[in-house]
Amino acid sequence: MKKIAVILSGCGVSDGAEIHEATLALLAIRKAGCDYSVFAPDKEQTDVVNHYTGANVQEKRNILVEAARIARGRALPLAELNPEKFDAIVFPGGFGVAKNLSDFAYKGENYSVIPEVEKVLRKANELKKPIGAMCISPVLLAKVFKGCKITLGAVSDASKAAEKNGAEHVVVGHGETVVDEKYRLVTTPAYMLNANIEQIAESADNLIKELLKLI
Amino acid sequence: MKKIAVILSGCGVSDGAEIHEATLALLAIRKAGCDYSVFAPDKEQTDVVNHYTGANVQEKRNILVEAARIARGRALPLAELNPEKFDAIVFPGGFGVAKNLSDFAYKGENYSVIPEVEKVLRKANELKKPIGAMCISPVLLAKVFKGCKITLGAVSDASKAAEKNGAEHVVVGHGETVVDEKYRLVTTPAYMLNANIEQIAESADNLIKELLKLI
Repeated sequence: MKKIAVILSGCGVSDGAEIHEATLALLAIRKAGCDYSVFAPDKEQTDVVNHYTGANVQEKRNILVEAARIARGRALPLAELNPEKFDAIVFPGGFGVAKNLSDFAYKGENYSVIPEVEKVLRKANELKKPIGAMCISPVLLAKVFKGCKITLGAVSDASKAAEKNGAEHVVVGHGETVVDEKYRLVTTPAYMLNANIEQIAESADNLIKELLKLI
Repeated sequence: MKKIAVILSGCGVSDGAEIHEATLALLAIRKAGCDYSVFAPDKEQTDVVNHYTGANVQEKRNILVEAARIARGRALPLAELNPEKFDAIVFPGGFGVAKNLSDFAYKGENYSVIPEVEKVLRKANELKKPIGAMCISPVLLAKVFKGCKITLGAVSDASKAAEKNGAEHVVVGHGETVVDEKYRLVTTPAYMLNANIEQIAESADNLIKELLKLI
């Protein structure tokens, strides 16, 4: 049974991992006959957002602890992720990717990826393990894999920032994927487009299907 | 397009709504060609659990505010739910049902359902609107609808408590449903059994399918 490591950035679209994308990525992995383990950085979130009002609040939450809500307790510290033990790596989206796994939300095109994530990406690539990224997560790939081909859905500030960092951005529709054969990357827009939840399920299913072809 | 009100009890299996059940119920509703609105009580959670360690923590969180994470911001206070405007009501599971929508987690068979939820249940029933409940949520129905027929999966403390309150408990397997034609109730075990995420998707799909037959 193939094993896929899923990296989360918290729990909730505005300050962590997008819950539908994360859940439907886990479901897609199991439906494809594979198993998953969930990882997240064991550190404080950059911010906490009240998802009812949309306002930032004065609270402190830990990325791993919140990610464990999506994983029903079974999340592990990202520092423990050894890509050798997995067949592929998957990043669901959510603003947590731009706030906790990188500083894209604050720095725009001059963003950087946190060292723990960059290390996993480089190691996975070195081992020829494919990497899947949904929604805003392809910005992580754009920074680390020079000249890689990705999608962030439509043309947006995010796609322009990825291009400024040397990536080739491909415009696609709901549920579609873009495959970079050289770096073994699969990307899909999910909620980067104004999608509904069935389109997220389709994005996740297609992402996993293409990812498996690259293993 | 039929509209279904989904009532959440927070965000996270140990102190709120179970995230996979909630997400997959929303997906099942959309896949069946219906639309949903998400509601939750606008009040403080009974407790907050660190889902990584399993320990209770000294934090305060609001049920509606946390439920809005699952709803991507689009959650409404339960007090605003008028069952006349919906075709059916659905309760995903999670310990939040036993801690925030009732006190089943603390009182066992002598539990009560919070007045806001009881009111919605009675009103929906009066209007002949069907009600679906996953996982532990059927305990809400057992208390309010005397002698109703439900499932909580296998025989457990929860199923015995439901029976002590006059319900007829039916043992079923993964993904199966029990239909009470008299009260128009559909129940399914989901994570009350030791399930994996595909079995939760099956539970949610079958619940919505049976619910639509009762509208």
